[in-house]
Amino acid sequence: MPSSTPVLPTARKAIGALVESQIRDVANAAMDDRSVLAFWFGEPDAITPAFIRDEAAASLGRGETFYTHNFGIPELREAIAQYVSRLHCPIDAGSIAVTASGMSALMLSVEALIGPDDRVVAVTPLWPNLTEIPKILSARVTCVPLDFGSGGWTLDLDRLLDALTPSTRVVMVNSPNNPTGWTLTRAEQQAILAHCRKHGIWIIADDVYERVYFRDHGAAPSFLALADPQDRVLSTNSFSKAWSMTGWRLGWIVAPAPLMHDLGKLIEYNTSCSPVFVQRAGVVAIEQGEPVIAQTVSRYRAARDYLVGALAQLPGVEVAAPPGAMYVFFRLRGLTDSLAFCKRLVREAKIGIAPGSAFGPEGEGFLRWCFASEMTRLADGVARFSRFLATLDSK
Amino acid sequence: MPSSTPVLPTARKAIGALVESQIRDVANAAMDDRSVLAFWFGEPDAITPAFIRDEAAASLGRGETFYTHNFGIPELREAIAQYVSRLHCPIDAGSIAVTASGMSALMLSVEALIGPDDRVVAVTPLWPNLTEIPKILSARVTCVPLDFGSGGWTLDLDRLLDALTPSTRVVMVNSPNNPTGWTLTRAEQQAILAHCRKHGIWIIADDVYERVYFRDHGAAPSFLALADPQDRVLSTNSFSKAWSMTGWRLGWIVAPAPLMHDLGKLIEYNTSCSPVFVQRAGVVAIEQGEPVIAQTVSRYRAARDYLVGALAQLPGVEVAAPPGAMYVFFRLRGLTDSLAFCKRLVREAKIGIAPGSAFGPEGEGFLRWCFASEMTRLADGVARFSRFLATLDSK
Repeated sequence: MPSSTPVLPTARKAIGALVESQIRDVANAAMDDRSVLAFWFGEPDAITPAFIRDEAAASLGRGETFYTHNFGIPELREAIAQYVSRLHCPIDAGSIAVTASGMSALMLSVEALIGPDDRVVAVTPLWPNLTEIPKILSARVTCVPLDFGSGGWTLDLDRLLDALTPSTRVVMVNSPNNPTGWTLTRAEQQAILAHCRKHGIWIIADDVYERVYFRDHGAAPSFLALADPQDRVLSTNSFSKAWSMTGWRLGWIVAPAPLMHDLGKLIEYNTSCSPVFVQRAGVVAIEQGEPVIAQTVSRYRAARDYLVGALAQLPGVEVAAPPGAMYVFFRLRGLTDSLAFCKRLVREAKIGIAPGSAFGPEGEGFLRWCFASEMTRLADGVARFSRFLATLDSK
Repeated sequence: MPSSTPVLPTARKAIGALVESQIRDVANAAMDDRSVLAFWFGEPDAITPAFIRDEAAASLGRGETFYTHNFGIPELREAIAQYVSRLHCPIDAGSIAVTASGMSALMLSVEALIGPDDRVVAVTPLWPNLTEIPKILSARVTCVPLDFGSGGWTLDLDRLLDALTPSTRVVMVNSPNNPTGWTLTRAEQQAILAHCRKHGIWIIADDVYERVYFRDHGAAPSFLALADPQDRVLSTNSFSKAWSMTGWRLGWIVAPAPLMHDLGKLIEYNTSCSPVFVQRAGVVAIEQGEPVIAQTVSRYRAARDYLVGALAQLPGVEVAAPPGAMYVFFRLRGLTDSLAFCKRLVREAKIGIAPGSAFGPEGEGFLRWCFASEMTRLADGVARFSRFLATLDSK
């Protein structure tokens, strides 16, 4: 049935109904106001290391400005395969697809697997991109909320498994999670994978924060370490967070071999390929970037501990240290409209943080603070936030 | 209804059914064989001009490695708006969306407009990406074939208008066309637009070859020059062909104002943004690239004239000079399996051209030769092709 013809030249209804970013809603009003201390976006504050930028410039100098393979240059696929093999399990370069961002990796995964009216389950609160992408493909998305307590965010595993009915097509999990920092344990992953095997359910694991993990020095637990080659497990990843390369738009997918042929077609029809000079930067990031990651994680750990400690002392704040990612997602007593609160905060206190409701209705009453920032900036932010809360109390 | 569970971890049926590139099929077997003269891909043979590459390197040097606006940096949106205004009609920067390739521009446009079971009409032969993308969104695609005669490729306008029924959602037109070079006249565009206005049909115009046009010194006729702000016209474009920037993955969309808000959400959910350092290169390409385009078109015109003249002298070849794009799409008498022919050609004669069937069933019996190449390479290719045909005749 054709769509009805609107009077104005607008998009189809499903697109009009997509959630837009409440973070952008807060930020747009003050993006160019230099007096605002911004902690709203999930972005490291560091410029990409020079040795990575230099490699891209050298590639441009050599004239590497032509189309390349849909799946990426062989050198980068091989580097990623060795990297994943080191972290999780032996993976062949033939199971790696280079993508034009972690975001594109997610869109490609969804396009490959999810069609109209398919049932998709997501664990929330969650950055909205994961719950919205399946709707572009006309799927139905069911959310399973995490619980918040004094120990932080936890998953009611039975509740998730109950939601993963035999008619479910895909479960989407982002662990370590944006915004909560919640991270699946190995045992939880085993239980989820066993359940998904039984019912033929795909797991799309958004693993972009796996290296921003504070419980040990390697990486967060990954489904890849448990999956057999014939399992329905897709891992999406990105250079953005681990190597401070947000603006480069480079990511990858680890996929079962039988899916690769169709993924190649989808890459052709989405972006065709990623720039060679960007991919060259990705190769050196992987090959020489481990000290960068170690330093970043150490810096973030200190920032997290400082921020959690400082917020815990403020009246009405309930907070716990997240095991991964780069956000503190904390509750503020009496907060019922986090969007309005954040807009007022940026206007009156010149500090930008993200409203909890940006991550689904389960996030209402919470606020997200990105701690990928210099300590002095964080301290200044805490002081402003504290003064603002005091103003509220005195009214 | 959920998709059925396959035994192997494969993509959904609609993705498995997508056509894959027959050009890649021919090329993959010999991509690394240096003895093959390749004319199969639609790619200029020139490295991106140094002043464009230098600008990207300078941006990297300055550390422009962060996220940026979904719609692109203001400087590039403004440069594109002025460029389009100069070529076609006054356009505001607010109607420009920068995209991570012309390919991505097409995918975003389709996502915005086309849902399950929508009727889409395309003019063929056509590069397969245009007919396959709507199928990812579960749409139905109807093809209206061009006619081939001694004067080249022509459109039976009545046949197209008949196919544009009131229940049609979108018509996709690539003009100048890949592979045929066929280009819509202003009068044909007027008739199509009037018909689409009457029935509320969207026009997605893939305009990437508009500057590779040999009939005058400006650009091919564009729907943008005819459209009112409330018309359902989307123009997609790319830096690839005009500025020899295929590997950069940078493009744009010109869209009606009421569509922009939803396009912004879709960009967020597809690639989020394009790299700032790539966008900086785009700005200088537009601002300083007109001499490059003039030189390129002049070079391609000579290459086209040479190739058409040389092919016309070969037995069994029917060919006409295309008014635009960078291909000669010619008929070879007795050719019934162009894919098998091209595979044999690359193996035995070491020359790579694209099979006509890669562009839909209407293209069977034809071959596509990209003439974006140095004249000596073209001449060598013609000699090899000619010798191969002679071998066939003698058998």
